[in-house]
Amino acid sequence: MARNICVVVTARPSYSRIKSALRAIDDHPDLNLQLVVGASALLHRYGDTIDYIERDGFDITARVYMVVEGENPIASAKSTGLGLVELATIMDNLKPDVVITIADRYETLATAVAASYMNLPVAHVQGGEVTGSIDEKVRHAVTKLSNLHFVATQKAAERVQRMGEDPESVFVTGCPSIDLAASIMKNTELDFDPFVKYGGVGSTFDISDGYLVVMQHPVTTEYKEARRQVTETLHAVHESGLPTFWFWPNVDAGSDGTSKGIRIFREQNHTANIHFFRNMSPIDFLRLIYNSRTVVGNSSVGIRECSFLGVPVVNIGSRQTGRERGSNVVDVESDRTSILAAIRQQVGHGHFPQENIYGDGKAGERIAELLATVPLSFEKRLAY
Amino acid sequence: MARNICVVVTARPSYSRIKSALRAIDDHPDLNLQLVVGASALLHRYGDTIDYIERDGFDITARVYMVVEGENPIASAKSTGLGLVELATIMDNLKPDVVITIADRYETLATAVAASYMNLPVAHVQGGEVTGSIDEKVRHAVTKLSNLHFVATQKAAERVQRMGEDPESVFVTGCPSIDLAASIMKNTELDFDPFVKYGGVGSTFDISDGYLVVMQHPVTTEYKEARRQVTETLHAVHESGLPTFWFWPNVDAGSDGTSKGIRIFREQNHTANIHFFRNMSPIDFLRLIYNSRTVVGNSSVGIRECSFLGVPVVNIGSRQTGRERGSNVVDVESDRTSILAAIRQQVGHGHFPQENIYGDGKAGERIAELLATVPLSFEKRLAY
Amino acid sequence: MARNICVVVTARPSYSRIKSALRAIDDHPDLNLQLVVGASALLHRYGDTIDYIERDGFDITARVYMVVEGENPIASAKSTGLGLVELATIMDNLKPDVVITIADRYETLATAVAASYMNLPVAHVQGGEVTGSIDEKVRHAVTKLSNLHFVATQKAAERVQRMGEDPESVFVTGCPSIDLAASIMKNTELDFDPFVKYGGVGSTFDISDGYLVVMQHPVTTEYKEARRQVTETLHAVHESGLPTFWFWPNVDAGSDGTSKGIRIFREQNHTANIHFFRNMSPIDFLRLIYNSRTVVGNSSVGIRECSFLGVPVVNIGSRQTGRERGSNVVDVESDRTSILAAIRQQVGHGHFPQENIYGDGKAGERIAELLATVPLSFEKRLAY
Amino acid sequence: MARNICVVVTARPSYSRIKSALRAIDDHPDLNLQLVVGASALLHRYGDTIDYIERDGFDITARVYMVVEGENPIASAKSTGLGLVELATIMDNLKPDVVITIADRYETLATAVAASYMNLPVAHVQGGEVTGSIDEKVRHAVTKLSNLHFVATQKAAERVQRMGEDPESVFVTGCPSIDLAASIMKNTELDFDPFVKYGGVGSTFDISDGYLVVMQHPVTTEYKEARRQVTETLHAVHESGLPTFWFWPNVDAGSDGTSKGIRIFREQNHTANIHFFRNMSPIDFLRLIYNSRTVVGNSSVGIRECSFLGVPVVNIGSRQTGRERGSNVVDVESDRTSILAAIRQQVGHGHFPQENIYGDGKAGERIAELLATVPLSFEKRLAY
Repeated sequence: MARNICVVVTARPSYSRIKSALRAIDDHPDLNLQLVVGASALLHRYGDTIDYIERDGFDITARVYMVVEGENPIASAKSTGLGLVELATIMDNLKPDVVITIADRYETLATAVAASYMNLPVAHVQGGEVTGSIDEKVRHAVTKLSNLHFVATQKAAERVQRMGEDPESVFVTGCPSIDLAASIMKNTELDFDPFVKYGGVGSTFDISDGYLVVMQHPVTTEYKEARRQVTETLHAVHESGLPTFWFWPNVDAGSDGTSKGIRIFREQNHTANIHFFRNMSPIDFLRLIYNSRTVVGNSSVGIRECSFLGVPVVNIGSRQTGRERGSNVVDVESDRTSILAAIRQQVGHGHFPQENIYGDGKAGERIAELLATVPLSFEKRLAY
Repeated sequence: MARNICVVVTARPSYSRIKSALRAIDDHPDLNLQLVVGASALLHRYGDTIDYIERDGFDITARVYMVVEGENPIASAKSTGLGLVELATIMDNLKPDVVITIADRYETLATAVAASYMNLPVAHVQGGEVTGSIDEKVRHAVTKLSNLHFVATQKAAERVQRMGEDPESVFVTGCPSIDLAASIMKNTELDFDPFVKYGGVGSTFDISDGYLVVMQHPVTTEYKEARRQVTETLHAVHESGLPTFWFWPNVDAGSDGTSKGIRIFREQNHTANIHFFRNMSPIDFLRLIYNSRTVVGNSSVGIRECSFLGVPVVNIGSRQTGRERGSNVVDVESDRTSILAAIRQQVGHGHFPQENIYGDGKAGERIAELLATVPLSFEKRLAY
Repeated sequence: MARNICVVVTARPSYSRIKSALRAIDDHPDLNLQLVVGASALLHRYGDTIDYIERDGFDITARVYMVVEGENPIASAKSTGLGLVELATIMDNLKPDVVITIADRYETLATAVAASYMNLPVAHVQGGEVTGSIDEKVRHAVTKLSNLHFVATQKAAERVQRMGEDPESVFVTGCPSIDLAASIMKNTELDFDPFVKYGGVGSTFDISDGYLVVMQHPVTTEYKEARRQVTETLHAVHESGLPTFWFWPNVDAGSDGTSKGIRIFREQNHTANIHFFRNMSPIDFLRLIYNSRTVVGNSSVGIRECSFLGVPVVNIGSRQTGRERGSNVVDVESDRTSILAAIRQQVGHGHFPQENIYGDGKAGERIAELLATVPLSFEKRLAY
Repeated sequence: MARNICVVVTARPSYSRIKSALRAIDDHPDLNLQLVVGASALLHRYGDTIDYIERDGFDITARVYMVVEGENPIASAKSTGLGLVELATIMDNLKPDVVITIADRYETLATAVAASYMNLPVAHVQGGEVTGSIDEKVRHAVTKLSNLHFVATQKAAERVQRMGEDPESVFVTGCPSIDLAASIMKNTELDFDPFVKYGGVGSTFDISDGYLVVMQHPVTTEYKEARRQVTETLHAVHESGLPTFWFWPNVDAGSDGTSKGIRIFREQNHTANIHFFRNMSPIDFLRLIYNSRTVVGNSSVGIRECSFLGVPVVNIGSRQTGRERGSNVVDVESDRTSILAAIRQQVGHGHFPQENIYGDGKAGERIAELLATVPLSFEKRLAY
């Protein structure tokens, strides 16, 4: 009988990081996908991710609103609690054989805890990496709750094992986000007009000489700084004068600070070279990235997908500290002068060669095949 | 200014494991105790722990009902979610400087997650141990969320460090539960009549020739087995004919199975040699244990306090697997014949010498002093 | 297209009160039943109602654990809140056309609030009645949230209209619980041995000369009195010496008081004439009632079903105050002497003639037909 | 001993409607104010109401984040459930003698249900009024849960009694919101520059020849229409060319639709005559209203405070249908042509005479005095 694989998708970036695995699970004859969509993936403010999921042809098994609104970290804690309560009910009704949890968002832990307490095997995608901030606590706590580890890199596998996980439970599959990146390499052309297809707000401009892409998220444990940090980047980008596509941040404690920083900057400055988007289909997004002259901000896309795509990156601040990175990344402090200098340096350099640090483009298929074949257990014990 | 130390007590055994530290925190001039009592510690079915806490002279800062009733593990997951939601509100209103979470109960994780997400330093008491069942997942996940580790044994300290925790954050304080055990060594006499002082149900009998004490909890991940397991122990104890004090189990998925097993056995058998209690003051309980001929069941008290007290123990089944133990413990399967044979062997042996595996009786003071003096941070990073 | 009718069943008595309507909805060509089972209907302590539902051949669409354990009214409030959160998610995923809520239990309000806020039409069964205690607040609040009112009696209809409900929205269907009672009139014989078929605990005895049935629930707003009240009834029944079948109470603030009262009485007295059950199939239960010499306690069954069945009733205390009643009911205070005298009087009287106060046995069909045909709206406005 | 009066404030307009009562309770020698602030009153997006509360000198007893984010009515249901869970804990810890709930917001019901189930007397401010939409269900359901009714008008008192409430429990105190309005009559001058003191976004302009004030909330049961409706008003106001201060809407299902409508209109039109604010101190707000030439939208302020202040009002759509109103109000459909015509008519008319429909300015004192002196009970029964 086919195994029921329950995947809980709670945010735009998580969807990109699991999409190729979802497709491979859905297509696998021995697997049955149970897709639960919740948290910011349901919200308009964070890009209507659910619309993209449906447009990609996936059936949604259940929806769960679970984001508690607030301007500080209390809201993250409460959202996780609310999600935990409701995911338990959903899992009780769905009876999955395995539950998949993705990366290190705070809601990720709700999925892992619900499944663990209900004696369901937990599979974790993207464990073993090292970054800064609260993500660090969440990611490794999820590792300790998980029975299967589908990691992106060899170093991540080593870390997971050193934490006491059974080596037999750790698989270097690569990251499914790279599968998507790999899929555009057959046709890298920017085959749509971003202004026309995605609307957004802000100025319209000519991009025939290239453009920047900015993604800057609040650093959760410094959320009061969020507004200051985004303002530094805004000044640097504004001053560069380069045509720029800017994506709004995810829901997170502090995202209101980031959003507010952007709104106030726009009121006070004529940002003729910046256009703002909420979201884009993942494929369009990757083509936009591929064709950009430099990606700026603190998104993990800059570290992961861009190393595969060879796109120059200016990585700002501590959010990606500790992540393995390719030669395409220049790290800078959150300071307008440093950011601007780095942008100029990277724009001058141009594309870098492809690096397979985070995967070779076949992670999704590997994960589906493992889910269909590995022995399943919800028990575990420290390996030392 | 005094540091605010928020401690969340959610069950009878957790209270015993933290009581001496609570006292030391409350007495420390540089610390201010914020005591939150919740979950089964508020419930009559699980021994009215809150009454003992108040009788011990502690002020309760807040109470939170959070046990969702059920007969399977869903209830544990939902209780944790509910606790997480409410503890976040409580911590938001209390503004603690450190949050203490105890051992490895499922609600323990709610405390650790709430504090972590709210950027509060988390101190974990009793990490790094190895046992069976879901506790294993919870304990190590809590370790990964914690900033300070107050462990009971040297081996536990090593495990916590191997999991990637900063050695500077790991302190071998011993377990506060041993402090209580140590406190009765000045006067070990059973200075009360258990039948008179604690009521309970079941037969009354002469204990001048000694008695057994039984504590058997459901093993969460095998909860359907809970009823069968308790029945095996009941048969063995019944057949031994020895006077026996039996304690009802904690709230846990499966505890209804255990309770039901006991009720049905009592309906069907004349259990003339067994008397049932819900709870006892910790000090009375330790004197009762000290003077027993053997402790039977799967409680960690048999492994921890009894090694210090030198009381013979028959430890049944997998619940304590992996825990360091003294020469006072005989391990058996959950099988009435084996249990009965082990009881006879241990009763024949008599007291063992004191062993300090889990502490020397000064853990509470060490913990309070560390809480008052160590640098506090909610940030962390894998040490490799 | 068939209308989706979502019914939320949360307790044993609610199931009896809606069962015939569930059957009629399930059988109706223009209706599609979405059956959600939650709260105490899922719990063993309260009679495993869900097992009876499944045995009756209904498909369960979703289950939701929502009882927060406690010994005071806080738990009722929190259970309702938890239910509200989860029922919203369930309704969001089920997309019902109408939501049915039953009677006046505290969880009933969760269903009505969830549906109201989600702009779904709410149909209330059993509004407009008058009783004591918190039920009074809940019942009428649910009326104000409802768009359709399926009431049991003409007086109830008048009350609902006087409260400002549109007369077009109020239908005197009779109570579906009477449908079940009517169904046994073809064969009223007690065709099973209660001891054999239902086990239970307590003495076994000869019932060929008749027996009593006792159902006594805690009166929520006097929950501290619950233990005293049940003890009075226990003494009266004990002293009567009549063979007695006694049913455990529902989950409610105070039910632990009632349960404890029973347990302690049993420890202290040799209750040779009392046998205790948790639950029975509704049909067996009605035959047991029909053949009893008197029904004792404060259950609404005594007021409602027994008036139709003509069974003598001793109704104790304030719980049913204000409910319309037949000539079969003697009301007494919660006092052992009064209760005993009333039992003797009623046992001496024997059966009464059938009265159709609460329905004629066709409520379920009427409700289903109305659900299939009335215009639906979630809007409403005070009729004056 | 002083009675503990727990008041739960969950939104900006609720605060205005209770502020004078809060002050009178706080000042009363026989009352002790327990002020709980939650829901949108904590959120920046909805005007940082908590800052105003603190600036007014009130001590906050507890804060509770409870708004679940979403774009449809599910979020309202879940927010209420979450609030109910947490308010129960808060009330359990505060032990109030009476709980006050305000008006008819969805969270209002959470307060009333929590208190009712916990056997606490509930006092409802502003019951008995008739409007459209979901508020209608909530308001009257709260009436059925309440033990004391402090209503604004004689007609409201009659409706509450007709619904079956004991006439002894109904008091025509007037609405505390009118107390605030009355307090500015000593000095009605606009003694601050709104642009300077409150920032906000949008154009700056000369207001020496007068200005409009717009407050338009989504009508919950038509939330998909929210965007269309606000756009009609925007067009009318834009076309009028009159200087306009526009307040952002409250949190409510649909408020994102309203917000989005405003944002998109601003992107597409040069709204030179409109300036947007989130919030204002209540007194500044009332002076701004008093000095405006016309208030436009669907806020109850237009119906209530403005009838006392004599300010001309253009009331749009169904939100205030059924509310008693003065001669100062012109009602129009949500249609740009009708709105514009009504604005021109009202601007031409100028101030109206004061009408005391909703109070005479002493409601707060009356409420405090009643809370200190009336007999308290949590029991109730339908008066017919």
